[in-house]
Amino acid sequence: MNPNPLFPTKDTLGINTDLYELTMAAAYFQAGCAERRATFELFTRKLPAQRSFLVAAGLEQALHYILNVTFSDRTLDFLQSLPNFERVDPKFFDYLRKFRFSGDVFALPEGTVCFGQEPLLQVSGPVIESQILETFLINTLNFQTTVASKASRLCLAAGNRGVMDFGTRRAHSPQAGVEAARAAFIGGCQGTSNVLAGFEMGIPVVGTMAHSFVQFFEDEAEAFARYQAAFPEHTTFLVDTYDTLKGVEKAAKLGGKMVGVRLDSGNLHELAVKAREILDRHDRTDVHIFASGNLDEGKIQGLTLADVPINAFGAGTDLVVSSDAPSCDMVYKLVEVFETGVPEPRMKTSQAKVTTPFRKQVFRRLAAGGFDGDLICRCDEEPPAAGEYQPLLKQYLRAGELCEILPDVESIRTYAQEQLALLPSAYKLLHSSEEYPVEFSRELIQARESLQRKL
Amino acid sequence: MNPNPLFPTKDTLGINTDLYELTMAAAYFQAGCAERRATFELFTRKLPAQRSFLVAAGLEQALHYILNVTFSDRTLDFLQSLPNFERVDPKFFDYLRKFRFSGDVFALPEGTVCFGQEPLLQVSGPVIESQILETFLINTLNFQTTVASKASRLCLAAGNRGVMDFGTRRAHSPQAGVEAARAAFIGGCQGTSNVLAGFEMGIPVVGTMAHSFVQFFEDEAEAFARYQAAFPEHTTFLVDTYDTLKGVEKAAKLGGKMVGVRLDSGNLHELAVKAREILDRHDRTDVHIFASGNLDEGKIQGLTLADVPINAFGAGTDLVVSSDAPSCDMVYKLVEVFETGVPEPRMKTSQAKVTTPFRKQVFRRLAAGGFDGDLICRCDEEPPAAGEYQPLLKQYLRAGELCEILPDVESIRTYAQEQLALLPSAYKLLHSSEEYPVEFSRELIQARESLQRKL
Repeated sequence: MNPNPLFPTKDTLGINTDLYELTMAAAYFQAGCAERRATFELFTRKLPAQRSFLVAAGLEQALHYILNVTFSDRTLDFLQSLPNFERVDPKFFDYLRKFRFSGDVFALPEGTVCFGQEPLLQVSGPVIESQILETFLINTLNFQTTVASKASRLCLAAGNRGVMDFGTRRAHSPQAGVEAARAAFIGGCQGTSNVLAGFEMGIPVVGTMAHSFVQFFEDEAEAFARYQAAFPEHTTFLVDTYDTLKGVEKAAKLGGKMVGVRLDSGNLHELAVKAREILDRHDRTDVHIFASGNLDEGKIQGLTLADVPINAFGAGTDLVVSSDAPSCDMVYKLVEVFETGVPEPRMKTSQAKVTTPFRKQVFRRLAAGGFDGDLICRCDEEPPAAGEYQPLLKQYLRAGELCEILPDVESIRTYAQEQLALLPSAYKLLHSSEEYPVEFSRELIQARESLQRKL
Repeated sequence: MNPNPLFPTKDTLGINTDLYELTMAAAYFQAGCAERRATFELFTRKLPAQRSFLVAAGLEQALHYILNVTFSDRTLDFLQSLPNFERVDPKFFDYLRKFRFSGDVFALPEGTVCFGQEPLLQVSGPVIESQILETFLINTLNFQTTVASKASRLCLAAGNRGVMDFGTRRAHSPQAGVEAARAAFIGGCQGTSNVLAGFEMGIPVVGTMAHSFVQFFEDEAEAFARYQAAFPEHTTFLVDTYDTLKGVEKAAKLGGKMVGVRLDSGNLHELAVKAREILDRHDRTDVHIFASGNLDEGKIQGLTLADVPINAFGAGTDLVVSSDAPSCDMVYKLVEVFETGVPEPRMKTSQAKVTTPFRKQVFRRLAAGGFDGDLICRCDEEPPAAGEYQPLLKQYLRAGELCEILPDVESIRTYAQEQLALLPSAYKLLHSSEEYPVEFSRELIQARESLQRKL
């Protein structure tokens, strides 16, 4: 048996999902109501602990999915062979054979700073189509948003110093490594160690050497010299394989050009100060100091506040798995069903999971050079008159076709930084006790209350 | 611009890695020592908090990578265009164009219960080849081992009740969803909601319905009837969209066959007891109760110990991102370099990150129907004479070719369960204070000490 790579492919996109999306699709189909239009909204009920905001990311991959999801013959044969589907009308599989999403999609542009309860994505179309998309859309937006939000925290903690993504090895699958590199860049990182992210998206790729390279040679100085010979203009030396400060000394004495030294273990505060002294003593004032090694935003902030002479940080595990909050717990909820062209509200009433009916628009109030509160309205409500309100959700798909130009990651990153600059600083503290004001319009509150009474 | 899916492909395997693997490769190449043989070992220094053991997983995908990693022309053009590589000899890129791993690989069979310091994988070959593999191998083994280990905890907590993987939507990328389904099954889950995992590997796929399906119809009972009509033999009703117990009542009254009801929110203990009463009162004693909704091993154990009438659990986020320990922090370390055919030891001496030189074998002592301690020896040491010792590491690749038959996931899962049955119960507690005894042989300790003095 040849080993199976488990790579996602276009050919299997349709079944790259939870079974219940397809059982529900079959039930809609057999009930004769598959083509009735419905709207689903994707959002996070409540931000994870320690988070006062999110940075939306992952839309591009979500749109690729929506535009390309189909069911190939071999995957349909498999589905039809499952015991669950044995009594399902074969016409359902003919339907899937021709499946193509034909509806509309609205979303927050990637890089938008957003909050709990705010829809990141809305899908309107025949209920069978909109339902089938659920799992993959949550998967893609939840992960990239989680990492982009985490990255923004690390970058805020680092102040003017740069943060690099070094997390690919600890990402959850090879694809997660590339998606994390993208999201980390959107969230504010300056570059990534992931070469494929550079190839696919032009994200700056960075890297030095591993301890193994130093160990391979008989002598640390020889390892440094060998590396410098190959990269005379781009050498950063990893100095902590044996004795960190002796390593710095050896690097400083080597001569030739070097970009920096990297500290990857030990007391980074103390080592950075001493490394700076050694470098300066050797007239290497232009050589940068990079720090890495299980860094999170707390440690980075500590080093930054102490004004330790570190020029940039590398973050790995903590960034790409978002250790303290590895999920934003996004959900995809039915909010309306169209009967004879008019949207009928839908909501859930179960404990702690109440939803709000109807498709929405999010209006953001701009005041005194910053954001000052969001108002969630029905999509066709008049925006509030007072103040200056900016609608956030944009249409990306119309009748199944892309109707908006997608920006490159560099532009998304710039937009995210503009957004963060407008977010009042109280919400940008690592441990914020402030909750950004997000309100529902009176119309939505009334719709929710009246429906709740009815159900 | 067409949206980019960021799917991993065979064509880009070579650059699906950290930049520094390739800069080090270039430096080895230019230094003329690329072909000197070296051994790297992949292991976890210390188990994550709350973990007393790991379940090895991900080897099949790791072997796929090793057997298939190459560099395509378009990815090499990209590499060569990076500023870092501008002074690198063009012959290096010709070398990569012909790249194919030619060395040996030893590993723990998937499903093996293992511990900190024990190599999960060993790569021996020309240093340039062995180095290049690092990032992808850590990525793949770290993630699947993390999830398989987490799954085993959830399953131990569930006792005789089944646990299903419902986590695809919260997995870190679509590929992570499928890899997590595989690892969860290996760790003891009975099935997954991930259809692709069923298609690719034959893992049993399971699923019910979403709240949206219930909401879509005017009436909960109508939704149940519609679903049952499509799946007369395989109906499980989600009963908590509005009022859970009323939902159970409606399902019980519906008539026809049903497999079970699913509770997804609220006080599961109380609701399950009452749901059981309602079902039994309607002579539905054969109907199962499934529970889900942010479950972790602690909650599952609580429900199991209270002997609540729940037949099986669904686990989502907590399982597939391994929330409390989203990484095993695996590392890939150089342990020996061959000079004239003889292995020279290599190790790291930096604080808290000391390694042990030489390629190793792990011997497990079997006693009184269980494991009773592991001894890590040099690979060519005589196994200890007393007691019964079982060597754990097996050879999978010889001179770049697969030399061992890979089992299917069902067999791996069975093997993992056998392994867990042999692990003394003290280590299987959710909060164990016991540390399984893992020792290094005297020969390895001496080698480490003598090298440490030298460095």
